[in-house]
Amino acid sequence: MKSASPDEVDRAAAAAAAAFYPYSRSEPALRARFLRAIAQGIEGLGDALLECAARETALPQARLAGERARTCMQLRLFAGIAESNSWIDAQVDHADPSRQPQPKPQLRSRLVALGPVVVFGASNFPLAFSVAGGDTASALAVGCPVIVKAHPAHPETSALVGGVVSKAAAACALPAGVFSLLFDTGFDVGMALVRHPQIMAGAFTGSRTGGLALWRAAQARPVPIPFFAEMSSVNPVFVFPGASMAYADTIAAGLHASITGSVGQLCTKPGLIFVLKDAATEHWIDTLAALVSRGAPGTMLTASIHSACQRGLAERTAIDGVTLLAQAALPPGTAGAGAALMAVEVDTFLRISALQEEIFGPTSLIVYCSAPRDYLRCARSLEGQLTATVWAGPDELRGEDELLWVLEQRAGRLVFNGFPTGVDVGTATVHGDSRFTSVGTRALARFVRPVAFQGEAP
Amino acid sequence: MKSASPDEVDRAAAAAAAAFYPYSRSEPALRARFLRAIAQGIEGLGDALLECAARETALPQARLAGERARTCMQLRLFAGIAESNSWIDAQVDHADPSRQPQPKPQLRSRLVALGPVVVFGASNFPLAFSVAGGDTASALAVGCPVIVKAHPAHPETSALVGGVVSKAAAACALPAGVFSLLFDTGFDVGMALVRHPQIMAGAFTGSRTGGLALWRAAQARPVPIPFFAEMSSVNPVFVFPGASMAYADTIAAGLHASITGSVGQLCTKPGLIFVLKDAATEHWIDTLAALVSRGAPGTMLTASIHSACQRGLAERTAIDGVTLLAQAALPPGTAGAGAALMAVEVDTFLRISALQEEIFGPTSLIVYCSAPRDYLRCARSLEGQLTATVWAGPDELRGEDELLWVLEQRAGRLVFNGFPTGVDVGTATVHGDSRFTSVGTRALARFVRPVAFQGEAP
Repeated sequence: MKSASPDEVDRAAAAAAAAFYPYSRSEPALRARFLRAIAQGIEGLGDALLECAARETALPQARLAGERARTCMQLRLFAGIAESNSWIDAQVDHADPSRQPQPKPQLRSRLVALGPVVVFGASNFPLAFSVAGGDTASALAVGCPVIVKAHPAHPETSALVGGVVSKAAAACALPAGVFSLLFDTGFDVGMALVRHPQIMAGAFTGSRTGGLALWRAAQARPVPIPFFAEMSSVNPVFVFPGASMAYADTIAAGLHASITGSVGQLCTKPGLIFVLKDAATEHWIDTLAALVSRGAPGTMLTASIHSACQRGLAERTAIDGVTLLAQAALPPGTAGAGAALMAVEVDTFLRISALQEEIFGPTSLIVYCSAPRDYLRCARSLEGQLTATVWAGPDELRGEDELLWVLEQRAGRLVFNGFPTGVDVGTATVHGDSRFTSVGTRALARFVRPVAFQGEAP
Repeated sequence: MKSASPDEVDRAAAAAAAAFYPYSRSEPALRARFLRAIAQGIEGLGDALLECAARETALPQARLAGERARTCMQLRLFAGIAESNSWIDAQVDHADPSRQPQPKPQLRSRLVALGPVVVFGASNFPLAFSVAGGDTASALAVGCPVIVKAHPAHPETSALVGGVVSKAAAACALPAGVFSLLFDTGFDVGMALVRHPQIMAGAFTGSRTGGLALWRAAQARPVPIPFFAEMSSVNPVFVFPGASMAYADTIAAGLHASITGSVGQLCTKPGLIFVLKDAATEHWIDTLAALVSRGAPGTMLTASIHSACQRGLAERTAIDGVTLLAQAALPPGTAGAGAALMAVEVDTFLRISALQEEIFGPTSLIVYCSAPRDYLRCARSLEGQLTATVWAGPDELRGEDELLWVLEQRAGRLVFNGFPTGVDVGTATVHGDSRFTSVGTRALARFVRPVAFQGEAP
């Protein structure tokens, strides 16, 4: 697809700004109808959409079918929220004309839409975090026009879905500016959108480098705007000895699936596994290592993601103290990526901060600790994370409240005796490492602001 | 008071960080007791507090008594919120073990405290926006330790209230680090606190220069933190002809009180008044001008605020097209500030952006428009505001929805047929120009983040 020109960026921003007034004042039922029409339109694309996405991303069609179901479910979830209008969080403080020394006026307040939002499609979810993904659905639900900057890794999939959204807007007689889709093989269009005075917020899922550059541009504007960036996460897992005893096979098989699913290209892939050295733990690590060695390689989303993964793995294993426990064999001449399991001692982990960096791909690092109190030290050393997972036997977390509290400070989601991949979308979902979530119904909180009304309009 | 040394800053931050775990895990009832003990302690200081504050700020004791009542009301309001624990906004998505292709886990979520918060006392509210003001109350309610950087304009008042807070913490057997008070005559201490790795958020009310410098420092940290700055606002007022006819005297007297109350040193003082040129409007403007001319001068909070006000007024009236309609006469040798009312034509207003800058003091600018559609142009030209006020006669706003919508985009509070000064503190209060309020129960939203829990801790 041709990259958008500066003029096209301006036109999309002007159209979004012009659409903001009527769209933010539109009936809740109309926005709901719009979102449902998008979901229906996506389903109406049938297998052609899945085939296109599979061709562009190398993701299996079964996974893409699941992602499509999630995408449409999200759209309908937000349609329900738009329709109920409950998100406006209406509050009233009643008047008291007899109050002294001054009468008390009536004060009502509600949340309102923030304005045109730029959404950045992510490479690893061509449907659920892309053109009509959760960011777009939550922004449209509350009355914000959306401009999507398509991810260059799946332009045709983006164009197919973009066509559906525009058609749904037209069918609902909404101004065309409620939704625009722009393409770019580089960074200029995204940067121009974030800097555009008509844009009031940004939502991004992707690499730390890209996300930080856009975040900085958003903050450097004459009037800064919120820029919500979901970037890297290493999703630490802490395994207590009782769990190693009780759930060895479950842990080994589950971690393997969680590390290698979607060729490790999930933001919630477990990249750090903290364990104690005991026989039960060594047993499931052996099992996990065997699964990793035997696993089939997969094709990654793009050549540059593949080479970044290979480079990350080479750099990681070159660090003194890091050992390669297992690696999937690659048939000669294969361009795919095979899983890798590494290990390191806790002191080395705490000394070398590079070991906390995400490798986007099917790799993970075991961190051998001497005692559970090492878990607290390691947890304290962590940056913000999308998830943190704890495996423990019955009553084994008694006395570990401070560790759980530290993980609460670091992570948006704490998983008990489960695996971090597979994000369920609902009211309680938190997918973020700071004050906001990009997934679930709370995601709309990013695109609203409160306004109070004092007295009654005459 | 002696400025805090870098070592004292470090100690306060370390104490706050150490207090964060126990305090954020403390019983809701204990935090409520703490907040109520602070309110009771402030009341227990009696007239000595009001006398001290009056001496330091030149504000009349009656106004300070009202501010004390508001401060204690806020503390008790947040005590009630802490006690009810309703702010955690608990959500549950129930498990569905039979779901295909994967079982659905139970997901619960809630809001948790963000961490140690630095609060900057404001010069113009020595009690309600200072040591134990709304920022401190809302942060303490949700379990965030607080470090207050006292405003240098009222150090003794700050020390008196700080003593009360520390005594209340001790009485509740809370770690001393839940609250610290630091002094500084310059900017180093505040800057060091905002940059300190243990500080997780900042709250500020004051000048644009100071607020922006601190905001930039917060964003430039290796891990940026939210910094909530309430800075300048010119609080536009739009008067429709029907209101000029029906409410001439009310408007003149009310605007005069709103412009000159607290010597114009309120962030919600109306600084821009948009009117149409008709006989009824000229009538109340004459009345307002007469009130301004006859008004007594007042002493401003500090010498530097006084000289900034005088300078602002001189610069404003030097602008070609700005006329001085009325100014309070100052007896010779008086150092006080007298009110001033200026006027300008709409085209000049739209051309010169400096006319939108706040003059912190008892001045306001009438903007003469030719037709109601000028109101829409002017509203669109405005920056973010704490308030926007509309005066209109019955049915006069029919057809003005777009103006009201534009004002909704620009302001945190829309006032109908009222005056912007006098902020009522409650559930519906919005005091802010962006996505957050620093006043009212929603103020706590600044200091929390959501966390999800998947599965049950074994």
